[in-house]
Amino acid sequence: MIHHTELTIDTPGRGTTDVTAAAQAEVRESGTQSGTALLFVQHTSASLIVCQNADPQVRRDLEAWLARAAPDGDRIFRHTAEGPDDMPAHVRSTLTATSLTVPIVDGRLHLGTWQGLYLYEHRTHAYRRRIHLTITGA
Amino acid sequence: MIHHTELTIDTPGRGTTDVTAAAQAEVRESGTQSGTALLFVQHTSASLIVCQNADPQVRRDLEAWLARAAPDGDRIFRHTAEGPDDMPAHVRSTLTATSLTVPIVDGRLHLGTWQGLYLYEHRTHAYRRRIHLTITGA
Amino acid sequence: MIHHTELTIDTPGRGTTDVTAAAQAEVRESGTQSGTALLFVQHTSASLIVCQNADPQVRRDLEAWLARAAPDGDRIFRHTAEGPDDMPAHVRSTLTATSLTVPIVDGRLHLGTWQGLYLYEHRTHAYRRRIHLTITGA
Repeated sequence: MIHHTELTIDTPGRGTTDVTAAAQAEVRESGTQSGTALLFVQHTSASLIVCQNADPQVRRDLEAWLARAAPDGDRIFRHTAEGPDDMPAHVRSTLTATSLTVPIVDGRLHLGTWQGLYLYEHRTHAYRRRIHLTITGA
Repeated sequence: MIHHTELTIDTPGRGTTDVTAAAQAEVRESGTQSGTALLFVQHTSASLIVCQNADPQVRRDLEAWLARAAPDGDRIFRHTAEGPDDMPAHVRSTLTATSLTVPIVDGRLHLGTWQGLYLYEHRTHAYRRRIHLTITGA
Repeated sequence: MIHHTELTIDTPGRGTTDVTAAAQAEVRESGTQSGTALLFVQHTSASLIVCQNADPQVRRDLEAWLARAAPDGDRIFRHTAEGPDDMPAHVRSTLTATSLTVPIVDGRLHLGTWQGLYLYEHRTHAYRRRIHLTITGA
């Protein structure tokens, strides 16, 4: 059986939103006991990460690293019409994940103890973002 | 049903080739209405990205960023027998995607409006590259 | 049919462990002739890469690149309680892959000639790591 559903997330601007519980709820709703869940972000300036879920500072430090690696307003970029944060957002999306597949075991996303699933908004402004979920299994 | 097929792309050297239409054509050909499409690059110096498809400058800027982050001829590298662009190509492949899964909805790859699928050739010379497609669903 | 299984790897500390043969053995064991194999690492400081399998220097050079890009003890990081290598390990995990799907053709992982699958331990100490395998197909 294949179930298609969607998570809609209103981001507050740059940073991460925990989508683990919302994705777990969709798996439960689907009734799938064994299979896989594909999370696919339908954007190129927001993306997915699997990250440590115990200390929020981990995600703030990751943000600090990305902000230094792909700084806003970098003069290397020429695609600047959409703002100084647009091209860095595309770079960040490419370095992280647009598509992520997670096993489903015993009716749940089979994550490690310290793993959370996060939508990463890379633009500085707030956006409405969509993650398409494809739940496959039995 | 599982369909295996292959895209063969002759790259012109470093840079991106849009494979969205070719992948959509394979999905259509398979007759799959609902499911997933796995794109898997069978190389370690070419890879996949999902990128903004409206302004080609976005991909040129991404190239500029990667060229700065993993410069050809970097003296940090010792695996140099295959040329100054070989090791950077392996780094770039690792930072981007070898495997990418996209939902299929209503007989089509369910991409966002601004999303394109690109094969990224990281070597400076032209190569023949293979993307294996596994289309699963009904 | 869906088969769930697990690879347990005792890493010797930072660096890569080839898991290609172990994953191939699980595919063979499952009897799956055609389908996909999802490798999912249940950690956030170890990850997966697909890398050139002919010259081990390639992976050493990749390590040198990552060690420079996300150096241990970087003063940009504030999450330091778990050691100077912990936050770099989370960054490295985010830049590489937690989830990786490989086609299965003729009862085998359909990798390119020069492709190997590697678990990448990003912490400096040894850890026991788990890769969950979900083999789907017929």
